[in-house]
Amino acid sequence: MSSARKSVRLPGPFTMRIGGVLPQVDVAYETWGRLSPRKDNVLLLVTGLSPGAHARSAAEDLSPGWWEDMVGPGQAIDTDRFHVVCVNSLGSPHGSTGPASVDPRTGKLYRLTFPVLTIEDIASAAHEALSALGLPRVRAVVGPSMGGMTALAYCMLFADEVDALVCVSGAARALPFAIALRSVQREAVRSDPDWRSGEYDPPGPVNGLRIARKLGLITYRSALEWRERFGRERVGTREPGEGVFGIEFEIEAYLETNARKFAGTFDANCYLYLSRCMDLFDAAEHGGSVEAGLGRIQAPDVLVIGVETDFLFPIDQQEEIAAVLRRAGRNVRFAALPSIQGHDSFLVDTDRFSPVIAEFLSQI
Amino acid sequence: MSSARKSVRLPGPFTMRIGGVLPQVDVAYETWGRLSPRKDNVLLLVTGLSPGAHARSAAEDLSPGWWEDMVGPGQAIDTDRFHVVCVNSLGSPHGSTGPASVDPRTGKLYRLTFPVLTIEDIASAAHEALSALGLPRVRAVVGPSMGGMTALAYCMLFADEVDALVCVSGAARALPFAIALRSVQREAVRSDPDWRSGEYDPPGPVNGLRIARKLGLITYRSALEWRERFGRERVGTREPGEGVFGIEFEIEAYLETNARKFAGTFDANCYLYLSRCMDLFDAAEHGGSVEAGLGRIQAPDVLVIGVETDFLFPIDQQEEIAAVLRRAGRNVRFAALPSIQGHDSFLVDTDRFSPVIAEFLSQI
Repeated sequence: MSSARKSVRLPGPFTMRIGGVLPQVDVAYETWGRLSPRKDNVLLLVTGLSPGAHARSAAEDLSPGWWEDMVGPGQAIDTDRFHVVCVNSLGSPHGSTGPASVDPRTGKLYRLTFPVLTIEDIASAAHEALSALGLPRVRAVVGPSMGGMTALAYCMLFADEVDALVCVSGAARALPFAIALRSVQREAVRSDPDWRSGEYDPPGPVNGLRIARKLGLITYRSALEWRERFGRERVGTREPGEGVFGIEFEIEAYLETNARKFAGTFDANCYLYLSRCMDLFDAAEHGGSVEAGLGRIQAPDVLVIGVETDFLFPIDQQEEIAAVLRRAGRNVRFAALPSIQGHDSFLVDTDRFSPVIAEFLSQI
Repeated sequence: MSSARKSVRLPGPFTMRIGGVLPQVDVAYETWGRLSPRKDNVLLLVTGLSPGAHARSAAEDLSPGWWEDMVGPGQAIDTDRFHVVCVNSLGSPHGSTGPASVDPRTGKLYRLTFPVLTIEDIASAAHEALSALGLPRVRAVVGPSMGGMTALAYCMLFADEVDALVCVSGAARALPFAIALRSVQREAVRSDPDWRSGEYDPPGPVNGLRIARKLGLITYRSALEWRERFGRERVGTREPGEGVFGIEFEIEAYLETNARKFAGTFDANCYLYLSRCMDLFDAAEHGGSVEAGLGRIQAPDVLVIGVETDFLFPIDQQEEIAAVLRRAGRNVRFAALPSIQGHDSFLVDTDRFSPVIAEFLSQI
């Protein structure tokens, strides 16, 4: 199957925010919808940790995208109106330059020689990619989860180039509870002997990544959803030899199935870098306080949207973004949705998210 | 230093609930306060996963106990009035028979040949220990966390031998969110090559246990507490060679310090058994429903107490216990405390817990 994924090489070396230079950066992206003659209908979509640029199926790649029900003709992110550009994050293994890429200076994979990655680097790489594509201005930038952080960073760094911001289940900075949860995930990967301090051959530390992903999955949903969905249901058959510590409950089978999918497809070093960059993000670094940092955002129209059952990017952190931007004079819509699926609700409860996002975008 | 810990050998073989027989069982315990001539002032204290029977310092062991501020002369659990017996759980490495004990039939450690452990087994072993000590009746049984489950089981199984029940941050059954969190903890232990399918020599899978404990610690506290306590504070110095994935934030240092303490002192196989037995607990197995199971409890006076920030044993599960027992005609006091320390609040926010427990016990 041919892929809809394209790639753009940035014109020069890329200087990382905390230190280090990447001599050559490719940014993978996909697009949907026609670019207007005035190039004034660009909607930049930035992503969470896991997905690539394939937000929606396309003629060249019919597989469903990660936001298939949100992006498309007549959908909330309407490709009849917008030229949607979804950019794969710098550091991701899904086509953009990252720890799993070859360093042209050595001919070897970067691995842990990749410089410290920050959310701001991801935003800057997306910005340079758009520039290289001849799209200097965006009508709206939209990002969920880690992408919500990236969208905030984009609007802080390139304040006069964005008309509207949609921050979905994001946060202005990482707080210790989320840092702790991600720290343990990374440690599960780093403790797998197959990680070999980053010097693994394929398939790498699959077991550590599987455990890390299980913990990630726990943080992406909610106790309420699982109580309704799984209860205390037992699996029909146990795997032999596992005894009482094997998979006994349906919830354990669910984690196993989904974690295996991820662990077999995601590069471990990329995972570590992307995970850590969320911990490092703090809008307060752009002016001394969250207020001053977010105050740099000049996009006149802002939608901040999240859910009440999210404990990884809790709703009060999103309310904070909305409150600060409102005080800064932006036109802010804040929506706290009652979805029960926790942080991942934006992926699965599109019935609730779509109308709010559609209404907001229709008014910009 | 001499220890206050005593041990009682049960008179005969011990039949485990799901299957298997232990030919010989020792139960470690400590006591405080004088037994009344009528033996009618016994307060049985059952514990969470981690601690042993040393709930309070004593002349023979001056080290602080795990509930030092709660148990003692004039304290909420008043040793001037009660003969307090704290029993170490069956399966624990702190003196009672468990996976780290020698199976007298083989002369070798039980390890994974130890039968499946349930909360009911822990309650039954405590009951047999009291019988062997000549204490057939208890004035009150008190248990926090896993001990809350054990206290419920005790009152279901030995319904006419208990006058009062205090269930602290407990639950009538494990729900999938808590099961998932414990499942990942066990997998971190089982994935450590040093676990060797349970056949480790000392010190065993210290690294896996350390990671498991970190995740445990996350579930024992709350996002709110950590936000106030640690914020985004950085540690002063990084350990060499760890790079960006080492300990960077204060919250990571806190987890590391506390997890190391635990991993160096707790047997890994015991940890697995005790962790799993909480998943398996379901009061509904005693009659077909939680209502029917808890309905077996005949203790006339019941205190159910927990905190609103607990997401491991959430307050609505405790409210359920109170509501069911109230409908069953018990005299129930329910207290939902606003402590910010999450599940562990009963250990650290004794200023809030003590008055409620003291008042309840003063009225029985």
